[in-house]
Amino acid sequence: MTDATPRRGRGRPSRTQTQAAPATRDQILEAARAEFSERGYEKASVRGIAKAAGVDSALVHHYFGTKEQVFEAAIEVAFAPALAAPAAIEDGPLEGVGERLTRFVFGVWENPATRTPLLAIVRSAVNNEAAAAVFRRLVAAQLLRRIVQQLDLPDAELRAELAAAQLVGVAMLRYVIKIEPLASADLERIVARVAPVVQGHLTNP
Amino acid sequence: MTDATPRRGRGRPSRTQTQAAPATRDQILEAARAEFSERGYEKASVRGIAKAAGVDSALVHHYFGTKEQVFEAAIEVAFAPALAAPAAIEDGPLEGVGERLTRFVFGVWENPATRTPLLAIVRSAVNNEAAAAVFRRLVAAQLLRRIVQQLDLPDAELRAELAAAQLVGVAMLRYVIKIEPLASADLERIVARVAPVVQGHLTNP
Repeated sequence: MTDATPRRGRGRPSRTQTQAAPATRDQILEAARAEFSERGYEKASVRGIAKAAGVDSALVHHYFGTKEQVFEAAIEVAFAPALAAPAAIEDGPLEGVGERLTRFVFGVWENPATRTPLLAIVRSAVNNEAAAAVFRRLVAAQLLRRIVQQLDLPDAELRAELAAAQLVGVAMLRYVIKIEPLASADLERIVARVAPVVQGHLTNP
Repeated sequence: MTDATPRRGRGRPSRTQTQAAPATRDQILEAARAEFSERGYEKASVRGIAKAAGVDSALVHHYFGTKEQVFEAAIEVAFAPALAAPAAIEDGPLEGVGERLTRFVFGVWENPATRTPLLAIVRSAVNNEAAAAVFRRLVAAQLLRRIVQQLDLPDAELRAELAAAQLVGVAMLRYVIKIEPLASADLERIVARVAPVVQGHLTNP
């Protein structure tokens, strides 16, 4: 046994692993993550991922299925900590949820280790419908749904999406387009202005 | 003389035009606009633009310079009405500027004729630093600066950018990623929730 335990996507049925499989599967996922980060969804290929992992393309398809499914699995691994974190957003009073969500999102963006794969996801989702579908499933289903469940208000889904839109827009202009002074502004100045807006979208009458 | 007068970028020095030049120049711009819309900045080429316009690549360079400058000129033409529109945002009381800006931005996105080139710009800006630079210059210098000039408040630039971020984020999730229910929601429901946020960013103490 290696210490690399097999990582499975949420809700995906467990599969019987051969003894060598966990390490190989992780190697493929790591290669996929690097390939998608560097080349984006459209230019990345299963063949390139297989080559980087030192395996045959057929093995990539065997473990993950289509390119879209490889992409989703790679994103899930990259964002396993992030996708688990909504618990931290849920914990605490509803009147602080805007700030908790804001700090969580900027925490992911400010950390270079999570920013790089996130940039790759955003670039891919903007350019490719299959990647956009993965983004929708992950963000909508896993992050926003858990926030919506806390809100006992009409239009809860629309509210959560408009709150997310404020955060997505700041991330786009600060980290992707790098518009000044927003790109260089102290994070606390941004949180001070953005968190109340996020809170307002979620809980204002 | 044709009725197609030569269009020049703002602040670019006028150049002596030959008699045949205006129509050819417009043909190149139109070809550039189509090429960038269809292929995005990275995949578009000066050679492809020249071919579509039925001219030599050298003529494209002669009129516009580098690929980045062709892109900027094509964007300026596509957005001439939009970039002139801030006058409509400036007109009127400051307490209505949030709604005027919000309606203006969504008007551009809801109109298929302006949405297509805008999508191309967003996709290009997300993927390519040169295209991002063009986006920064146009949005920051031409749209936001005119809003900032109206605000007699500290942090006016940051305020304008956070307001823009809310609008950019909604546009991303509604028109690009197409997350539901935001993608299908009635525009007035969105304006009702977003305009006060934009106003707040701009003018709240």
